[in-house]
Amino acid sequence: MSGLEDVMRRIGVLEVGAMEGARARQGRLTKPPGSLGRLETISVQVAGIQGRARPEVSQKVVFVMAGDHGVVAQGVSAYPQAVTGQMVANFAAGGAAINVLARQVGARVVVVDMGVAGETAQAARVVHKKVALGTRDITCGQAMSRRQAREAVEAGIEVFEEELGRGVELAATGDMGIGNTTPSAAIIATFTGRPPAEVAGRGTGVDDAGLARKVAVVERALSVNRPDPKDALEVLGKVGGFEIGGLAGVMLAAAANRVPVVIDGVISAAAALVAAGLEPRVKEFMIAGHLSTEPGHRAALEHLGLEPVLDLGMRLGEGTGAALAMGIVEAAVRTLNEMATFEEAGVSGAEGE
Amino acid sequence: MSGLEDVMRRIGVLEVGAMEGARARQGRLTKPPGSLGRLETISVQVAGIQGRARPEVSQKVVFVMAGDHGVVAQGVSAYPQAVTGQMVANFAAGGAAINVLARQVGARVVVVDMGVAGETAQAARVVHKKVALGTRDITCGQAMSRRQAREAVEAGIEVFEEELGRGVELAATGDMGIGNTTPSAAIIATFTGRPPAEVAGRGTGVDDAGLARKVAVVERALSVNRPDPKDALEVLGKVGGFEIGGLAGVMLAAAANRVPVVIDGVISAAAALVAAGLEPRVKEFMIAGHLSTEPGHRAALEHLGLEPVLDLGMRLGEGTGAALAMGIVEAAVRTLNEMATFEEAGVSGAEGE
Repeated sequence: MSGLEDVMRRIGVLEVGAMEGARARQGRLTKPPGSLGRLETISVQVAGIQGRARPEVSQKVVFVMAGDHGVVAQGVSAYPQAVTGQMVANFAAGGAAINVLARQVGARVVVVDMGVAGETAQAARVVHKKVALGTRDITCGQAMSRRQAREAVEAGIEVFEEELGRGVELAATGDMGIGNTTPSAAIIATFTGRPPAEVAGRGTGVDDAGLARKVAVVERALSVNRPDPKDALEVLGKVGGFEIGGLAGVMLAAAANRVPVVIDGVISAAAALVAAGLEPRVKEFMIAGHLSTEPGHRAALEHLGLEPVLDLGMRLGEGTGAALAMGIVEAAVRTLNEMATFEEAGVSGAEGE
Repeated sequence: MSGLEDVMRRIGVLEVGAMEGARARQGRLTKPPGSLGRLETISVQVAGIQGRARPEVSQKVVFVMAGDHGVVAQGVSAYPQAVTGQMVANFAAGGAAINVLARQVGARVVVVDMGVAGETAQAARVVHKKVALGTRDITCGQAMSRRQAREAVEAGIEVFEEELGRGVELAATGDMGIGNTTPSAAIIATFTGRPPAEVAGRGTGVDDAGLARKVAVVERALSVNRPDPKDALEVLGKVGGFEIGGLAGVMLAAAANRVPVVIDGVISAAAALVAAGLEPRVKEFMIAGHLSTEPGHRAALEHLGLEPVLDLGMRLGEGTGAALAMGIVEAAVRTLNEMATFEEAGVSGAEGE
């Protein structure tokens, strides 16, 4: 178990030697230089993260963290709060989209109850790190205490480091929490400085009236709480969520342990802003899995300086976009490792070289 | 073996009943409606192609077709012509990017010599459909006779139908041919009506002078040959290539046999224009795998009305972008088939529904 400050201190920088080695090998493989595009840059980043010119990503884990949100009392979601716990049971039973996609890319799914309002079923298959039975309504005051915010992040660190012993070469983040696009929009508005109307979206599918209500709710949450963007734990505590804190912890722990972490949609991006607010070097260890249709997602990724790998009009969460992108990251690493060089294959290089 | 006219006649339309069945199931799965974005629309298209509401894409094949081009005499490529045959040997040995990516997605690779200039090594692992030892220089006259153009397309049909007996539920196309972005640009300019300067690109990586030379070469090829865009076999014969004709044949045969076919980059898109010129219904059976950096690719996809699945800055060919997209198509089909419904999982639906 590592405390937050310890983990932040352990986050280093990408290893230049490993990246140079990977880049040099890319130049010798049987293809025109640069012709694998993003696959080449991802392979070099993963080499720098793992500190080896021939990285490996066989052992993959998706961390799906769940929590409930008091703000659902304001009518910000199309679904009842009970769905959070019901979906945790669905994850544990293997029937959700993230289970299907993780199976396809060969990733394990670690489901964590960070703060579901009520008992979670199938307890044996769920990691229990419940901070509280859901957050408080952010339009009336802060979501959680500062101590709970730290507890959530440190629980995420613990979950990651417990899983590390089973082998984690590539991590991904995912979320479940009815109402959680609302605190995510509040977090994104705080860190990016954009107005709520630009970063709040339809989430699971609210109508025009629901969207207007969401924008007003985020505005009220920010004016009631006035979170300081320079104090990431304060932002998390005032307008965040337990699963968002846990995911920030996973990201920090992944970086501290030199494991690349694929960020999913808008909730994971809000968690990434919290993590980067705590320790900016964590951004170098992130890969943005996809671009969701939630407007706040693009704003968050731009602020983080991350370019999404996929853009498939998805907006489900659970880590679904990140799991799909894990397949692309694996393709990047496999082409680097498994392709023949010009010399090995007896293929001529470009003329004049 | 089926002749061209027979195959064209056998191409039907998407089955509406199967598509409705798939769409209805998507609405019952444990996720907000539409939240899997492109995965949902792809799953419905594949259902319509295969004519079943629960389609299957376990059996995957990438058809990689190779040919040489007389126009390389005009200095349009950064690589010597010998590389075409050397890369065919690399495909047969399993060392190329397409081999790595096909292994990852569980696809077989069928390598076809459609018109390589010289003997191809590792003959046992290469399907031989050589129409001639490369095309003639399209700046001096037509690439091949009309009879050879038909022969190339029918060879592609034969290759596909021979493979069908081994199981093909999802097909992809790929190419190898030093110089082949030049005839592809000529084909795309002909069908889309755009000027060569808008559709010719750097291919494997020519410099500014090389690009200017390529544009001039395409202009000359079009003014010497004046292909009629209403006669697709004439376009293929006058400014095309043997591998391009073969790929058009694969696409037509896939459609005739109700197999979805994932289109790779700019060369495959040129072949898709030829196939669609012969029988427009073939477009309904196509999925555009990715968007390459070649400017002609976007122009061709827009003309075909296809939206690329991936956009990763790739420009390698071989079917690499299509193979990666096969993983996304499989994800689309697997989520449709394997996710639990709201009823099965005991999850509540949206409120007010």
